[in-house]
Amino acid sequence: MVDVTETTDAPRAPGRPRSIRADEAILESALDLLAEGSTIEALSIEAIATRAGVGKATIYRRWSGKEALLQDALRRLKPPPPEPPGKSVREDLIALVGVSGHNPDPRVRKIMPCLMPMMNRSPEQYRLYQELVEPRRRMLREVLRRGVELGELRADLDPELTVALLTAPLVMQRLLRAQPDLDERDLPARIVDAVIAGIAPR
Amino acid sequence: MVDVTETTDAPRAPGRPRSIRADEAILESALDLLAEGSTIEALSIEAIATRAGVGKATIYRRWSGKEALLQDALRRLKPPPPEPPGKSVREDLIALVGVSGHNPDPRVRKIMPCLMPMMNRSPEQYRLYQELVEPRRRMLREVLRRGVELGELRADLDPELTVALLTAPLVMQRLLRAQPDLDERDLPARIVDAVIAGIAPR
Repeated sequence: MVDVTETTDAPRAPGRPRSIRADEAILESALDLLAEGSTIEALSIEAIATRAGVGKATIYRRWSGKEALLQDALRRLKPPPPEPPGKSVREDLIALVGVSGHNPDPRVRKIMPCLMPMMNRSPEQYRLYQELVEPRRRMLREVLRRGVELGELRADLDPELTVALLTAPLVMQRLLRAQPDLDERDLPARIVDAVIAGIAPR
Repeated sequence: MVDVTETTDAPRAPGRPRSIRADEAILESALDLLAEGSTIEALSIEAIATRAGVGKATIYRRWSGKEALLQDALRRLKPPPPEPPGKSVREDLIALVGVSGHNPDPRVRKIMPCLMPMMNRSPEQYRLYQELVEPRRRMLREVLRRGVELGELRADLDPELTVALLTAPLVMQRLLRAQPDLDERDLPARIVDAVIAGIAPR
């Protein structure tokens, strides 16, 4: 019954379309349940199995447990950002900042705000969240480094702090609508321009 | 049994220490339960009453329901920020930015990250959250306005966007530890200085 060629590291063996369909149904069901308000803690393998129309054993054949399943589900929800176009530093920053909240999957807006506070509940959840957001941070640091090299950005900028200034406002606004009076039109470009120019008079 | 001089609008009549002690026990119990991981939805008047060692009727004599009780409890947890010292624009901004995460009550770090995603679950919860954070935003706008008047800040700055740049990074970091590699020493001052100076070369 258990296919011994399957391991939890390679849940989707090629050439097995029926398994792939089951995997997809399982991952989609987990995302649906999270989007409907389930917390990570409350989410059970049993509930996922019921929703996906499979037995619990089918899930345990593919994933070692909830964390591994969620990792795959969240990767599916939030793929790494596309490489920046490599045009001007300003345009690359705008493209990368704008990734927040531009995910076409409507479940992202429901799930991500719930994930954020959960990420400090356990080292596993923290790692899971960091793994989702690190690719964009890496790209942002790279664009900043290029900007410094080109002389377009100041040589003494703090890259990690600059990443925070560029990303935190849009995350807070797009996911939490933190400031009701913040104009959201062209927000990525306005953030990038404000961070570049500063608020001191020139 | 019901004291008819009490209304839900005036839960703490002066000169009645026994009621005040009961009120405090009730509000503290609600905060304890939230800090221990209860969601706002899951928090019940019954659980609060049990924790506080009072009857449910005692709670309903003082508050119209959970939302009114939570409003008082959260106000207790997160009082409005102190007026900025009124020294330099930079120092006032640092003082106001630094308010995030400087609350001495250890429950804040547990409760606030859970409140944030909940604030979009219902208009009531959104209002509750906004009421908690608006006083600081109002003070920040006022300091920015003064900075522009004094010529220390550029006249064309977007106040609401600037408030987002100043506050979002510290909220994300202090409450969620969003960036493991972000140096947290003197973070309020470093945020303010970076937002003032910008990252373009001068």
